[in-house]
Amino acid sequence: MRTLTVELGSRSYPIHIGSGLYARPDLVAPYLAGRGTAIVTNATVGALYLPRVRTLLGATVRTEVTLPDGEQHKTLATVERIVGELLAARCDRNTLLVALGGGVVGDIGGFVAACYQRGIDFLQLPTTLLAQVDSSVGGKTGVNHVLGKNMIGAFHQPRAVIIDTDTLRTLPEREFRAGLAEVIKYGLIRDAEFFDWCERHLSGLLARDADALAFAIERSCRNKAEIVALDERESGLRALLNFGHTFGHAVEAGVGYGEWLHGEAVAAGMVAAAELSCRLGWLKREEYERVERVLAAAGLPTRLPAALEPARMRALMAVDKKAAAGRVRFVLLRGIGDAVVTADVPDGQLDRTLAACRAGG
Amino acid sequence: MRTLTVELGSRSYPIHIGSGLYARPDLVAPYLAGRGTAIVTNATVGALYLPRVRTLLGATVRTEVTLPDGEQHKTLATVERIVGELLAARCDRNTLLVALGGGVVGDIGGFVAACYQRGIDFLQLPTTLLAQVDSSVGGKTGVNHVLGKNMIGAFHQPRAVIIDTDTLRTLPEREFRAGLAEVIKYGLIRDAEFFDWCERHLSGLLARDADALAFAIERSCRNKAEIVALDERESGLRALLNFGHTFGHAVEAGVGYGEWLHGEAVAAGMVAAAELSCRLGWLKREEYERVERVLAAAGLPTRLPAALEPARMRALMAVDKKAAAGRVRFVLLRGIGDAVVTADVPDGQLDRTLAACRAGG
Repeated sequence: MRTLTVELGSRSYPIHIGSGLYARPDLVAPYLAGRGTAIVTNATVGALYLPRVRTLLGATVRTEVTLPDGEQHKTLATVERIVGELLAARCDRNTLLVALGGGVVGDIGGFVAACYQRGIDFLQLPTTLLAQVDSSVGGKTGVNHVLGKNMIGAFHQPRAVIIDTDTLRTLPEREFRAGLAEVIKYGLIRDAEFFDWCERHLSGLLARDADALAFAIERSCRNKAEIVALDERESGLRALLNFGHTFGHAVEAGVGYGEWLHGEAVAAGMVAAAELSCRLGWLKREEYERVERVLAAAGLPTRLPAALEPARMRALMAVDKKAAAGRVRFVLLRGIGDAVVTADVPDGQLDRTLAACRAGG
Repeated sequence: MRTLTVELGSRSYPIHIGSGLYARPDLVAPYLAGRGTAIVTNATVGALYLPRVRTLLGATVRTEVTLPDGEQHKTLATVERIVGELLAARCDRNTLLVALGGGVVGDIGGFVAACYQRGIDFLQLPTTLLAQVDSSVGGKTGVNHVLGKNMIGAFHQPRAVIIDTDTLRTLPEREFRAGLAEVIKYGLIRDAEFFDWCERHLSGLLARDADALAFAIERSCRNKAEIVALDERESGLRALLNFGHTFGHAVEAGVGYGEWLHGEAVAAGMVAAAELSCRLGWLKREEYERVERVLAAAGLPTRLPAALEPARMRALMAVDKKAAAGRVRFVLLRGIGDAVVTADVPDGQLDRTLAACRAGG
């Protein structure tokens, strides 16, 4: 088992990574003394892993809430439903919420924990690669509004994150590859050595080699944890984590949420960001090619959807919540492992990038 | 104008109290530089004060959301609606939300500010006596769930609170008196000198004498601010603020929300808590009589509703969120201005208190 700590003063918490961790009661014991627990999961994950988590938590379990699958349920209506189940089970302020599932379950479970009786403790048990390396670290929780993703939420840190890598054995191939996009992102924005490692070990990762996965997850979490520790409330540095996301969010919104997986949109977005970085003279063309090559080898899209013309992409990017004072901010590369944030991108260069990166373009 | 500061480190904020403050652009100027504002109010308050607040905020106003009157709208559905209006008006993370109204507007406006894009700044402009001395201080925000009041919420501090005492001129008499219950509460729990002052100046308060009101509001806010500064997250000391509330919440729930005003239920609850304190030998009978006398003179109820039998009251109190590990906690008096929290109340004494304090009992 590998363990790292996210350093956030009184809100610091450990991330445990390894095989068979759902059979390790010692990992959860520190959080269970004298309190009840409420498990929030979804139908697919619950069918696979709820029995072992139930055993892990034993007699503390007061209620289990199983959500239907899918991002379309990441709404305030679902928050209301979960709160109702917690109240019906007499959960009090001392209750520990346990979020067992992927990003949707983590986001909504974490948000319920942030809001239930103005805040209760929670544990994250992320079961997808994306959630393990991204949404379970950093305390971002929330739900969607019909007018925008993640528009309602809170920063609420878990007491601990337990990543049982065994859960990746049942993860569908497409979701697994989408998770790899975020893994590769950490190398690109601040860890050139890790990017090199990803290039060299991509086949092992794709074969879901247990040791390679544990290393990649730990290194990803460590990178994210370092950034979050320096910038818990996303005032500056943390924006680097959005590398590929300004384009990616526009793609997700433009093709309709759920058509592209988040990691797929981010992959194409990272290629676009790398292209824009080249056009601004910041990134060498051969570095751009390494970015594109490793993502393609991971089976991820490297082109923006043909259906999204540059003008449409620009409009979609403008409504993204990262737009500060009317200017769209981009995370760009000055080299592999060296990202910066800028709003200073000429419209012409952006349009040419969008055209060049469009599928069939 | 009187100004005090709620000391919360980096989240410290000023409370300005006085007449004509909605005509003081200098008070809001520090919060308006380079950003838009969104006003949240309700129909009654908006009709009276929205024009001046609109003038106060000038060209910064991006949108105005007017809620229907009433606690029944303090729901997640209303949160969803407000968020939709903010998104439609292109409000970003830098937007300042301005909550203009009583406790409901403050609670829901503050909660939207806590959650909108994971948190934006807000100003509180409380327009009822209750909101001015209670809900605008301390950062508690939230909405109701069908199974319980204030069950979904957050701690989110305003950037500033501006109390224009002119708004009290239009406050209905019953609401005004309900607000006085909370004013008197501060004297009872920690400020004997202020309780004496309330006894002596009750007629001036009831006549809504401007100087008396400004003094009472400042002193109340100062008492609450001191408690909150010492215990922002309600782990201990802050529980004293719930004096009268364990009984009061049960009354509100038992007779149906909206039948009794919050302050009315708290008034009867404070008398019950004082009675229980006497029965446990903590409070002198003549002190109890001062408590009952001043609340009666303020035109507030001093008896629990006849409809609520002791057994029913006990059941209602047990579901209150203050119940820790199954034990109902009470705030009791050891004297005027000296409150303590205890869960150590024999059932027999509680039942006798409930019977003695019941109207017609």
